[in-house]
Amino acid sequence: MIKKNYSIPNANKEMGKQVYEYINRLAKPLGSLGRLEELAIELAEMKNEAFPSIAPAGILVFAADHGITEEGVSAYPQAVTEQMVYNFLNGGAGINVFGKQIGSYINIIDIGVASDIEHKSLINRKIRYGTANFYLEDAMTREEAERAIEVGYEQGCDMIKKGAKSLILGEMGIGNTTSSSAILAVLSNSDVSSLVGFGTGISQEGLLHKIKVIEQSLQKRNPNPHDPIDIIAKVGGLEIAGMAGAMLAAASNRVPILIDGFICTVAALLAKEISSNAFDYMVATHQSVEPGHRIALTLLGKKPIIDLDLRLGEGTGAAITYPIIQSATLMLKEMATFDSAGISGKN
Amino acid sequence: MIKKNYSIPNANKEMGKQVYEYINRLAKPLGSLGRLEELAIELAEMKNEAFPSIAPAGILVFAADHGITEEGVSAYPQAVTEQMVYNFLNGGAGINVFGKQIGSYINIIDIGVASDIEHKSLINRKIRYGTANFYLEDAMTREEAERAIEVGYEQGCDMIKKGAKSLILGEMGIGNTTSSSAILAVLSNSDVSSLVGFGTGISQEGLLHKIKVIEQSLQKRNPNPHDPIDIIAKVGGLEIAGMAGAMLAAASNRVPILIDGFICTVAALLAKEISSNAFDYMVATHQSVEPGHRIALTLLGKKPIIDLDLRLGEGTGAAITYPIIQSATLMLKEMATFDSAGISGKN
Repeated sequence: MIKKNYSIPNANKEMGKQVYEYINRLAKPLGSLGRLEELAIELAEMKNEAFPSIAPAGILVFAADHGITEEGVSAYPQAVTEQMVYNFLNGGAGINVFGKQIGSYINIIDIGVASDIEHKSLINRKIRYGTANFYLEDAMTREEAERAIEVGYEQGCDMIKKGAKSLILGEMGIGNTTSSSAILAVLSNSDVSSLVGFGTGISQEGLLHKIKVIEQSLQKRNPNPHDPIDIIAKVGGLEIAGMAGAMLAAASNRVPILIDGFICTVAALLAKEISSNAFDYMVATHQSVEPGHRIALTLLGKKPIIDLDLRLGEGTGAAITYPIIQSATLMLKEMATFDSAGISGKN
Repeated sequence: MIKKNYSIPNANKEMGKQVYEYINRLAKPLGSLGRLEELAIELAEMKNEAFPSIAPAGILVFAADHGITEEGVSAYPQAVTEQMVYNFLNGGAGINVFGKQIGSYINIIDIGVASDIEHKSLINRKIRYGTANFYLEDAMTREEAERAIEVGYEQGCDMIKKGAKSLILGEMGIGNTTSSSAILAVLSNSDVSSLVGFGTGISQEGLLHKIKVIEQSLQKRNPNPHDPIDIIAKVGGLEIAGMAGAMLAAASNRVPILIDGFICTVAALLAKEISSNAFDYMVATHQSVEPGHRIALTLLGKKPIIDLDLRLGEGTGAAITYPIIQSATLMLKEMATFDSAGISGKN
């Protein structure tokens, strides 16, 4: 079992207590920075540092294709995965724009696109040319699922070695809300209809078809809800497995994971299934429009920071939220205390 | 009537339509950047520019004292206003930290602190040494109220001349949630008890006392709800009037106003009363914990962007939200379109 390969330290609650007390000495009314104060404490516990930093962020965008698109579950043709990878590599996608805004590193990884992509900046770790159509057969072998997680782990470690102090995991893969919905249905034991959404923009009719495809696929594939590798192999996606692996790398290195939207949260659930204390290193950044996201966040046990009706993916929601999390760290590092600023206490 | 002195252009809805169409051509699923897309359109309408920028922000922190503190309505002694002004000038306050994070200009203006403050960076525009205790007499004269608005207007214009492309208005004044609650009770015709909060942290008993002081003050002062200058003169604060004036300057110059929390939103209501189309240039940034803030935002007719249980004031909530608004402008300016990136449309 892959669980044994990861050694993730516990977050240091004692450090959190010290930071809590320090925050109460900052020159501001007690508790008046609300959620920022909670975030500062959580980050201190993760990093085991009194003045944690998340800068710079490292963004990893994993791209892969999905055989399930053959069933007509997506609004866009499969070719868009490849086209969007070129857009990432040329700096024109949302995640490029918001990544640049926050001064992050960004790596684009082909972990399973259905075509060959040539570009000097691309990291090629293709496991296979897209998954198989899981309506007809398993998406991949168990061995491929494990390798996809390992690729993600290795990419996470590389980004951390490069200097990233927090990780943002993005994805591109036409069809991946279908795979994510299938995985979440298994993990949450929920009705498929309660968690499937319009993805990148299918019709109402398309939505009903998508639900039916997932329901029938799950009956046929019958993944073991207690075995995350089995779930990935049977209905998963290579980029989803890669994101989970990168999260395990972050957690192993005490690096905060800034969880994006629906697909990323499903990957987080898988990472938590593989090694439960990966949970300690996760920060949920935003609440997406995709209905499954609320279910996934509840199951994960994390409360998002912002709710702006985003549903782009790519890691964009996490990048957009990043400055707020950074504000929490700067509050700790740069604000004066009542004592240092010579300010009177309460009446 | 002061209303006549301000000439504020209307936001250009036609520009908004053009930008809406442009956003729909960006390489992302339609509408998938949610609230960011709305913000981009609003900013384009305000600035009358297809690619509006809000960078750099200019922060104006207006500081003043409140005679009403004599009635024991605050958790902190009046001396904290002066002490915090020094903290701003020395760079140790929350607004300094978050202002630096977003690369903004920051000016600290003494518009009515009860003591003399000596510091090379302070802008001294003191109208009087704090307001009078409005439980016993009018807070200031009508002429002082008008001058405070003018000082704010002048400071707003100066900051815009310096290069600020958006304005954040902050405040410091022990007792100013009491004044703001009184103003809001008049403008919203609400029960005082429904909108008064714990401010910087008074007790439950203190809260009941604060409500009683405000109710009785309003009976005695009886401000005219249709005359914003009368409201300011009778129960207002000099920093609140200054913020309203700075907002009028921003609106006159097509500069977006990033509205902070409770006190700032009350100032926005006054600015809107003085010149109704100032409204077109306002962006509500966050939902504060202070109960009056929800009432004030509803009355203003603006929906906040984030809700993180903040209640520090100083403009901090606006500064913390600023990067999200900036993301909206960068989406417009830097993202590729379907055409430019050669990406296929929907099936």
